[in-house]
Amino acid sequence: MTALDVVVMAAGKGTRMKSRLPKVLHRLAGRALIQHVMDTAAGLNARSTVVITGHGAQQVEAALGKSAAFARQEPQLGTGHAMQQAAPLLPDDGTTLVLNGDVPLIELQTLQQLVESTGGERLALLTVDMPDPTGYGRILRRGDDVLAIVEHKDASEQQREIREVYTGVMAVPTRLLKDWLGRLTNDNVQGEYYLTDIVKMAVADGAHVAAVKTVDRIQVDGVNSPVQLAELERAYQLRHARALMEQGVRIADPARFDVRGQLHCGQDVEIDVNCVFEGDVSLGEGVRIGANCVIANASIGAGAVIHPFTHIDGEKAGVKVGEGALVGPFARLRPGADLGPEVHIGNFVEVKNSTLARGAKANHLAYLGDATVGERVNYGAGSITANYDGANKHRTVIEADVHIGSNCVLVAPVTIGRGGTVGGGSTITKDTPAQALSIGRARQASIPNWQRPKKAAK
Amino acid sequence: MTALDVVVMAAGKGTRMKSRLPKVLHRLAGRALIQHVMDTAAGLNARSTVVITGHGAQQVEAALGKSAAFARQEPQLGTGHAMQQAAPLLPDDGTTLVLNGDVPLIELQTLQQLVESTGGERLALLTVDMPDPTGYGRILRRGDDVLAIVEHKDASEQQREIREVYTGVMAVPTRLLKDWLGRLTNDNVQGEYYLTDIVKMAVADGAHVAAVKTVDRIQVDGVNSPVQLAELERAYQLRHARALMEQGVRIADPARFDVRGQLHCGQDVEIDVNCVFEGDVSLGEGVRIGANCVIANASIGAGAVIHPFTHIDGEKAGVKVGEGALVGPFARLRPGADLGPEVHIGNFVEVKNSTLARGAKANHLAYLGDATVGERVNYGAGSITANYDGANKHRTVIEADVHIGSNCVLVAPVTIGRGGTVGGGSTITKDTPAQALSIGRARQASIPNWQRPKKAAK
Amino acid sequence: MTALDVVVMAAGKGTRMKSRLPKVLHRLAGRALIQHVMDTAAGLNARSTVVITGHGAQQVEAALGKSAAFARQEPQLGTGHAMQQAAPLLPDDGTTLVLNGDVPLIELQTLQQLVESTGGERLALLTVDMPDPTGYGRILRRGDDVLAIVEHKDASEQQREIREVYTGVMAVPTRLLKDWLGRLTNDNVQGEYYLTDIVKMAVADGAHVAAVKTVDRIQVDGVNSPVQLAELERAYQLRHARALMEQGVRIADPARFDVRGQLHCGQDVEIDVNCVFEGDVSLGEGVRIGANCVIANASIGAGAVIHPFTHIDGEKAGVKVGEGALVGPFARLRPGADLGPEVHIGNFVEVKNSTLARGAKANHLAYLGDATVGERVNYGAGSITANYDGANKHRTVIEADVHIGSNCVLVAPVTIGRGGTVGGGSTITKDTPAQALSIGRARQASIPNWQRPKKAAK
Repeated sequence: MTALDVVVMAAGKGTRMKSRLPKVLHRLAGRALIQHVMDTAAGLNARSTVVITGHGAQQVEAALGKSAAFARQEPQLGTGHAMQQAAPLLPDDGTTLVLNGDVPLIELQTLQQLVESTGGERLALLTVDMPDPTGYGRILRRGDDVLAIVEHKDASEQQREIREVYTGVMAVPTRLLKDWLGRLTNDNVQGEYYLTDIVKMAVADGAHVAAVKTVDRIQVDGVNSPVQLAELERAYQLRHARALMEQGVRIADPARFDVRGQLHCGQDVEIDVNCVFEGDVSLGEGVRIGANCVIANASIGAGAVIHPFTHIDGEKAGVKVGEGALVGPFARLRPGADLGPEVHIGNFVEVKNSTLARGAKANHLAYLGDATVGERVNYGAGSITANYDGANKHRTVIEADVHIGSNCVLVAPVTIGRGGTVGGGSTITKDTPAQALSIGRARQASIPNWQRPKKAAK
Repeated sequence: MTALDVVVMAAGKGTRMKSRLPKVLHRLAGRALIQHVMDTAAGLNARSTVVITGHGAQQVEAALGKSAAFARQEPQLGTGHAMQQAAPLLPDDGTTLVLNGDVPLIELQTLQQLVESTGGERLALLTVDMPDPTGYGRILRRGDDVLAIVEHKDASEQQREIREVYTGVMAVPTRLLKDWLGRLTNDNVQGEYYLTDIVKMAVADGAHVAAVKTVDRIQVDGVNSPVQLAELERAYQLRHARALMEQGVRIADPARFDVRGQLHCGQDVEIDVNCVFEGDVSLGEGVRIGANCVIANASIGAGAVIHPFTHIDGEKAGVKVGEGALVGPFARLRPGADLGPEVHIGNFVEVKNSTLARGAKANHLAYLGDATVGERVNYGAGSITANYDGANKHRTVIEADVHIGSNCVLVAPVTIGRGGTVGGGSTITKDTPAQALSIGRARQASIPNWQRPKKAAK
Repeated sequence: MTALDVVVMAAGKGTRMKSRLPKVLHRLAGRALIQHVMDTAAGLNARSTVVITGHGAQQVEAALGKSAAFARQEPQLGTGHAMQQAAPLLPDDGTTLVLNGDVPLIELQTLQQLVESTGGERLALLTVDMPDPTGYGRILRRGDDVLAIVEHKDASEQQREIREVYTGVMAVPTRLLKDWLGRLTNDNVQGEYYLTDIVKMAVADGAHVAAVKTVDRIQVDGVNSPVQLAELERAYQLRHARALMEQGVRIADPARFDVRGQLHCGQDVEIDVNCVFEGDVSLGEGVRIGANCVIANASIGAGAVIHPFTHIDGEKAGVKVGEGALVGPFARLRPGADLGPEVHIGNFVEVKNSTLARGAKANHLAYLGDATVGERVNYGAGSITANYDGANKHRTVIEADVHIGSNCVLVAPVTIGRGGTVGGGSTITKDTPAQALSIGRARQASIPNWQRPKKAAK
């Protein structure tokens, strides 16, 4: 097979998106449309990838970085004109695959089939049957060979009955492509250079033109508006949910399930309604995720239970939840939260950049930030690690078997010695001895017959 | 054109709603069904609006207040009888438009077209094609003219094939209407006076009867049961979502999106799954709303990010979120919360009737009520403004650049002087000097070798 | 009528579930598939119920306990072989009803109709029309009589046009069943004993075979994969929602509504989007449930309002919410929470095993565990009942009309005397007198011109 070079069309403005963001940078399932295309195309191991940019070129080029070469198309004078800009970057000896940056769900196998159908020597078009082909270019065939793409407005009544249309994706020997590109004209109503005109050139040259028809319309759906974006998002998510279910994941409602990134699931994972997963998330065997959780960049150990309304976002540092841990409801785990096995994090508890060893518990209304918490520690309701002095963050160390009372403040840097107890309501500013009861609170006193303030007259 | 008078039918019981609430007061998208009708009709600038009430008349009249005149129909003897009650309130020289209080999604343009089709001189019916017209009155036409409305049970086999049915909405010169109403009889099986009988009177009088057919069935769907209410609610919400998307709003899942009121969005607004908006909400340019937020009566500034699980309800006082502010997850903003630019409100934080100046932060487990917070203040985790003495509410003032430690109590009325620091765990009952460290806590002490209580034998 | 004995097929592995859990123990609407079948069958008042177990037999038998007798089928040699294992447990004088443990939504009335159609003397099959019957055994009829079940692969072109198929459910006089079971052979491609072979035996014997056709496909849908489980779950939930709406319950979005157990609703109950109900939940008249609530094992009194993001789980002890109470948003009620009338529980408040008398309030960031709270008590923001000393749980008693300040700790066992006030920031370890102001906090002091730490150089 000849070498493959990929061209991705990404110069369009996407007026109907009504956005400052270039169309191909809009996100589907958390990734830019064009990133989907790039990631899929990567599976082809192409020799090079050229992205044709135009509207918002700088943003698009910045977003893609070094993963592609860029050809600027300014002004935009049609798809043929776009390809003419890319042509100098394409070696003559290869095959060029033309993709669209706003058609995100094309699959690798479809592209491979298309490229193969060129046989290294002919133009091959990707086509699809549309239930309502109005507006699309129809494929005129004689048997396997394509005779022409007829634009809707130029089509006869009989031709308009044809439901097979061109998808905008083609593969073509680069030598032939360049020849045809050089002969394109713009003598049409729009005054544009149409890439599809190469089909008639090929036929006129006596060359065979192949067509590969996909039956999977979602692969060739483009995004031109927020409505289409939402439709494709839902189609993608349902497909993703179905694939996970076929692996054995139990999803309570596939219509209320969103994955924006990679979700890896062990056996017997259960995911309740309305959960969102972002970035890289792995769920160990038997993990149960309650309703209405948002989980990003986290690794959840086997048998852990995440109760409803839990928000986990590990960002770059990640979050780890140990085997058999219980988290939530209403818990928040932030970057660097690292919970050991059997750890319990309860309601209205926030954990950030902290390590909790096996069996440690913080069950109620608490903050653990920049803390190292030993095994079996019980961290009382309402207690706070004061890790920030207004300028710098400091570390709190709570050694194994410590019991922290309620509404305590541990002013970092500070260490609570092993097996110690901190009395409820204490503010601890100095290290405490192991096995000791440490307190910092005032004597209790009462003023009898105290009159509470009265409601002020209005 | 002659003057327009609107009559809204609202006397029915709505037995299938199985509710104590009169049917027309049931809410769709947060507004009473009849309020939708009234609000749409308001666009017609009618001379008068008469609402015919019956079941639950007092409740309906109280709900609508002075926006309409009322005609009571007691007992309910049919639609013609209902109109007879309204007739005395309708001046002879106008056109009467008959609407239904339980058909909420009729649109202004449709009504305008219907009224125009009377030409000021003839009866005009609003009709619709039903896929299954069983039970509905069929429209018999000769060309553009209506010959009759034939009730389903009276229809021949051939007539039952007709799918065009009457919607219950008509416009008619009032003079003619009154003439016909005066001649209605109730010699039918139900013993009721049917308004639709005026069609045959018109035809018998040799008058033309016009029909305007809408293709948009949702506009003429009535609500007779909670099932129908839910169906119409979903249809309304999907339509609303689509309209916003066409303006450029990115909605992650239009099937999980609810607006009950007015939602105004700037450019490049993104709304994640399962959000609910109530009352008047405006979202500035580039605002991002995370999954599972409930937001009511609030104005969110450009570039602000509302993280998942945020609950905002400004009620009458409203909530303002400044440009570039970060709110949530698990935050609650209550009436009078006024956040300046770049303010951060984090998890498990409640703000009520408080102003936070630019850059102030309350990131964890805190309560700010009746507080004035200066620029760049850092309000510690677990800290509380004790604004309520059991009888009255008092104000807490935290001046610029103050740092409040963790788990503090600021007992209002109190002022924390500019640039000051309050040590963690302090209860502050008196004003504090600027630039000072203020503390109110006991000495830390430890009791060595302290034995924690043992688990009681059971 | 003869006595009825029920046989439930539950030996299959359910390979496509890809689970360690036997297929029939997978849960739909919170109950094991086979439990649905058992619960429905219970309405038949059968003499006995025999469950045929095989794969995961121990787990299935343990799950069902004493509600059935068990017949082990090991190895699994087909449905006829399965019935042969059950046969010794079935008295000859009765009728045997054969059900499938993985067909959860069969309804009582359908089963009654099927059993009746045996007339105590003939085999009766439950059938259904399938839009695409590919793969199913077709029902060959002459009038009301069934002539045969023809397997798809054995069917002629003409027979494949038949859309009526066998559902796997039958009723049959036990005496006849045993006779036929004794004559089954396994001379087929799979080498299995097919229960459906008894149809041809019956016909060969000259016996009539009846068929009862259901039009409600969902009743006979089996679960073989997580995809099918999710589909059936949604169908069940939509049906459940519709039934409640027909009783008058207003459900904002039936597609976002889940009941896993029993939900009893009074008149004029409103349930907002995305709520989940588990176990036994009753909602009194006029109760409103906000968006995104998860409520299990609770009784909510008339007129109570549950705001969004509320999590209630009474588990075994239950939760009670009194009439007119307000709960949430972001509240959590745990087992033994017993709220009197007009009680308010606000945001980030957790209540466990505590009784709150009429009008008591805990509105902000608080924990009430093992507490008895009197009428009209105001429990301050951030306050905690320290009910756990690291070994045992103790009770806190707060008598009527007490006002607890902010960020207090009440160290149990402790009693706050009637009408008393506890100053903000106090830790209370000893009982307090009635009507007194009790405090436990240090003197406030300030250190002027205090320099806050500077950001460390990096």
